[in-house]
Amino acid sequence: MAIKVYGSMLSTATLRVLLCLTEKDLDFELINIDLAAGEHKMPHMLSRNPFGQIPAFEDGDIKLFESRAIIKYIVRTYVNKGTDLVSNDPKKKAIETMWMEVESQTFDPATVGLAWELCMKRFLFGKKGNQTIVKEEEKRLERLLDVYESRLSESKYLGGDSFSLADLNHIPMIKFLMDTQTKEVFEAREHTSAWIADILSRPACLKVFGIPAY
Amino acid sequence: MAIKVYGSMLSTATLRVLLCLTEKDLDFELINIDLAAGEHKMPHMLSRNPFGQIPAFEDGDIKLFESRAIIKYIVRTYVNKGTDLVSNDPKKKAIETMWMEVESQTFDPATVGLAWELCMKRFLFGKKGNQTIVKEEEKRLERLLDVYESRLSESKYLGGDSFSLADLNHIPMIKFLMDTQTKEVFEAREHTSAWIADILSRPACLKVFGIPAY
Repeated sequence: MAIKVYGSMLSTATLRVLLCLTEKDLDFELINIDLAAGEHKMPHMLSRNPFGQIPAFEDGDIKLFESRAIIKYIVRTYVNKGTDLVSNDPKKKAIETMWMEVESQTFDPATVGLAWELCMKRFLFGKKGNQTIVKEEEKRLERLLDVYESRLSESKYLGGDSFSLADLNHIPMIKFLMDTQTKEVFEAREHTSAWIADILSRPACLKVFGIPAY
Repeated sequence: MAIKVYGSMLSTATLRVLLCLTEKDLDFELINIDLAAGEHKMPHMLSRNPFGQIPAFEDGDIKLFESRAIIKYIVRTYVNKGTDLVSNDPKKKAIETMWMEVESQTFDPATVGLAWELCMKRFLFGKKGNQTIVKEEEKRLERLLDVYESRLSESKYLGGDSFSLADLNHIPMIKFLMDTQTKEVFEAREHTSAWIADILSRPACLKVFGIPAY
């Protein structure tokens, strides 16, 4: 039975799951949910995620939501498939987990407003973002990226020497923002910029972002 | 070498780590960080967490920040000590992980504003919370708790039959809010209320909340 992902190519959380499945060389079926029509809040989706968010995920009788839980399930279940996305070394794993939490607790909250103003308003409603909000949020992102720049000046990837879920988790949001004016904020930082070029050029990334949005 | 936690009894993230250490029957030293004086933003703390947040954690040469990463390190490293806080069954573990992510992505954002208005303003500045904000945030919490009530009507704990990190992660915020007017929002839901009474009466919880705040 194929793995099913109910989600949208406009959703960073959906893309996180598709990137993980593709890195792990797993087949999946993407069932597109129409965000603009509010399909994620409709009964057939609320039965899959009672909080009304996407993606929802099915692998046989396993039914999950929350993208960061889904990818952990995937890497635990399909250990011997595709790319190793977590370290087996307990100390390295602890550092990778820490940077996964930084993405979740700090990077995502600092970028979600930019993604809304600069991407989602355009995708969903054909509107431009509010530049006052964008400038404020970019200042916040700059302070955050100074810490990333320091980390990436001493370590090729966030979790250490190898690409891991800690890096993968950042890809969807960075990919969206690199198509906007915020690209300049990332590119002003040498090591961050090299890291972004590296992770966005991975075959799995090129493959996933080649999937049509509709 | 003793485990060290740099944090504050006023910080839900610090309390999450202390609860996990106590459930695992591990000794630790709590080094109190003065939040009101902004000690978490001072150089000696920025060297432990460059994002200027607490807690920071040390276990020998392992140095971590991000409370949800720290507790995962603790349960992986000290498997045979104290309470089992994660399931060994892959399917059960996936469900526990999903509810851990619900806490991180949905419960915490829906309650952090209430904790600020009703607890932190009082603790740090001796001020009352803004009731307009409190009422708005309580409405948001009510919608969320309806989903929890449904889950807890079919399962004793969030992750399944056993207490796990998914439950533990909620304790600090719930403990703070049960001392405020928001208690009524929790108590209006039968199964949620029984779950709260259960998790707050655990010996580890009583022990941690008995530690003096200063």
